[in-house]
Amino acid sequence: MPIHLSTAQPDFAERFAALLSMKREDAADVNDAVAAIIADVRSRGDDALVELTGRFDRLALTPETLAFSREEIAAQTAKVSAEDRAALAMAASRIRAYHARQMPDDLSWTDPEGATLGWRWTPVAAAGLYVPGGQASYPSSVLMNAIPARVAGVERLVVCVPTPGGVVNPLVLLAAELAGVDEIYRIGGAQAIAAMAYGTRTIRPVDKITGPGNAYVAAAKRQVFGRVGIDMIAGPSEVLIIAQGAQNPEWLALDLLAQAEHDADAQSILVTPDESLARAVVAEVERILPTLPRAEVAGASWRDYGTVIVTRDLDEAAALSDRLAPEHLELCVDDPEALAEKTRHAGAIFLGGWTPEAVGDYVSGPNHVLPTARSARFSSGLSVMDFLKRSTIARLSPQALGAIGPAAVRLAESEGLSAHGRSVSARLAVLNGGQP
Amino acid sequence: MPIHLSTAQPDFAERFAALLSMKREDAADVNDAVAAIIADVRSRGDDALVELTGRFDRLALTPETLAFSREEIAAQTAKVSAEDRAALAMAASRIRAYHARQMPDDLSWTDPEGATLGWRWTPVAAAGLYVPGGQASYPSSVLMNAIPARVAGVERLVVCVPTPGGVVNPLVLLAAELAGVDEIYRIGGAQAIAAMAYGTRTIRPVDKITGPGNAYVAAAKRQVFGRVGIDMIAGPSEVLIIAQGAQNPEWLALDLLAQAEHDADAQSILVTPDESLARAVVAEVERILPTLPRAEVAGASWRDYGTVIVTRDLDEAAALSDRLAPEHLELCVDDPEALAEKTRHAGAIFLGGWTPEAVGDYVSGPNHVLPTARSARFSSGLSVMDFLKRSTIARLSPQALGAIGPAAVRLAESEGLSAHGRSVSARLAVLNGGQP
Repeated sequence: MPIHLSTAQPDFAERFAALLSMKREDAADVNDAVAAIIADVRSRGDDALVELTGRFDRLALTPETLAFSREEIAAQTAKVSAEDRAALAMAASRIRAYHARQMPDDLSWTDPEGATLGWRWTPVAAAGLYVPGGQASYPSSVLMNAIPARVAGVERLVVCVPTPGGVVNPLVLLAAELAGVDEIYRIGGAQAIAAMAYGTRTIRPVDKITGPGNAYVAAAKRQVFGRVGIDMIAGPSEVLIIAQGAQNPEWLALDLLAQAEHDADAQSILVTPDESLARAVVAEVERILPTLPRAEVAGASWRDYGTVIVTRDLDEAAALSDRLAPEHLELCVDDPEALAEKTRHAGAIFLGGWTPEAVGDYVSGPNHVLPTARSARFSSGLSVMDFLKRSTIARLSPQALGAIGPAAVRLAESEGLSAHGRSVSARLAVLNGGQP
Repeated sequence: MPIHLSTAQPDFAERFAALLSMKREDAADVNDAVAAIIADVRSRGDDALVELTGRFDRLALTPETLAFSREEIAAQTAKVSAEDRAALAMAASRIRAYHARQMPDDLSWTDPEGATLGWRWTPVAAAGLYVPGGQASYPSSVLMNAIPARVAGVERLVVCVPTPGGVVNPLVLLAAELAGVDEIYRIGGAQAIAAMAYGTRTIRPVDKITGPGNAYVAAAKRQVFGRVGIDMIAGPSEVLIIAQGAQNPEWLALDLLAQAEHDADAQSILVTPDESLARAVVAEVERILPTLPRAEVAGASWRDYGTVIVTRDLDEAAALSDRLAPEHLELCVDDPEALAEKTRHAGAIFLGGWTPEAVGDYVSGPNHVLPTARSARFSSGLSVMDFLKRSTIARLSPQALGAIGPAAVRLAESEGLSAHGRSVSARLAVLNGGQP
């Protein structure tokens, strides 16, 4: 049974606080194991990769076969059906079009004092994308990570994907090809993250690593952070649906279950002022659940974390949503734009009944790598910006330094940094008629 | 003696590689001590803050005196001289003007398929700024952290600044006031970070924490990351100056020393094709060094990490700079704009001899919180963007779902996510004439 809350309950505040602080993840402590793997890859390079891949993935490699060859990629991608290829190509094209609009502008202006100021955006030189193997090896995630990097102008794009027992997902290779990936290595786990961060003889290091992974991958990303940039550390996924009016209960139930089938730790939340709609959706969930191939996973998620909240009205629903700051927010109401204006913290917003979250996972265009576990309060989904960085630029005319330099000298002195002050005052002395 | 390199040396490649991998920080492992402090603040709240502040800062507080009162702030800021106040106000105003230009635009468009797509930027609700106490308690850093938050629209802005032995820096309080800070607490260290991340009875939690600090503060920020957002973990600071032509050696020497006086771990690097200029600058550094109040710190930095590299030409200098990816890059050459075009990885760029880095620390306008230790390869200085987050938005018309939905169904099936597929196909069935 999912969690049932109503804002009319006298103890609602405590119940909602418990929901907010609910932990959905076992934090397995793999830090020491990961540190040892990283140290091994740093010291032994390719030899460590070959040995670890043999041990963890039951796959015999040599330094020469760490990378997929052009021929292997062509042979694998040739297996993909025309329908799957067309679907993936449509997704790639729509994701590219959306992210192309994110490219920020450089700016430069000269202020009244004579200071020319601005900034310039430049791409990261090389990025590495981790792709999990096995069940969670999603070609859609390859597109969502690699395309923003390419749009940003990253020159060198690397993928690491483990192939346990030698099993390759041809769609992952095709997605990498469609996204313009340059190098694909059949390695995984902490050893793949270490190789991308520090480099080996075969694999040159990258500057930024993105992509999902298991506890080992997540711990490795945390440990190499600083040496390279990383994206967020993704937690279990969630959806919050606010619904009211003439909504189809089956659609809403399927949207809740689409979230639940990801992972037993996923969370699906329905918030509605309409108690009868809530009952109808729950009944549909119960009806559909046993028919799903992933009924066990979805059932566990729904049973442990599924939540229905009945509110007084939509305003109250919007306020609760903001406190939860969901990764995905579906607004299935008569005027979703108006309701969206009343919310503020959400990774991705889906407006109206014809925009199921699942289209956002694949083909609508926005990124599906989004902040989880309430981190939409302070962070955003993956974007072109994650593969760009900004240099600020300043050029002062002598007159500008004359105008603002004395304040800098004053502040430097107040902070006890005399060389700072003198670096400015030596110039002011020349400007004011001292010898050059 | 600083490190002397020349690209003409036969072993230059190895020497430069050693420079790239040089460690400038003792990584004291304070993780366990910090974890204990965070756990204490989480469980005992204000009581823990009072006790820890008594122990570490020799200051007897009560929950009621954790915050500075309006009257105390007014009494302290009244001590600031008119000149210091004017300098700080000019800095605040210029920093505000620069950062106001960073506000990104929302965007929305409808594509040919009928999908309305876009995104919306919203501010973080509450931000906390850590300000170190004692020697490194810099009012300029208060402005550089707090003003971008205010420009972004953050409603609640908190400062924590330790006051060891009760000693308060009036300029820090004045800077907080000028920047529009709402609450100032006289606590520091890991306990301040814990209080801002988790909240106590007196201090409500924030969503994002920024600001510099010692090893304890840095470790605490790493540990609370995920619960709240953090800015970068700052390392020791560095400047790289590329110089050629009729440059004033004294100015360049002072710019190198301004960096060196920050910290014995700071690094100052001069890169020039002009060996006689290099010699003249080094001579000026040696002449000026003993005259600095912070000669000991600056001398240690210059002796251990100061570096002079003589190159064949400016192109080679620019290429080396990119490999070092300096926090601060000064281009003291005849055509600095042209040289800037040839570089790509730098936190902040200062063009021409009249733009000493020290004006950028205080009054030019761009932020002085910048990526250190080569992280300009993949990250940017602090900006308004650090206090904003983006929600992606999608609204599909029934026709749009009809056009792109089938591809989503196909991809969901290929990934084994059947509820994803059915959440789309149930809608397509209605669209294609099924019952609603």
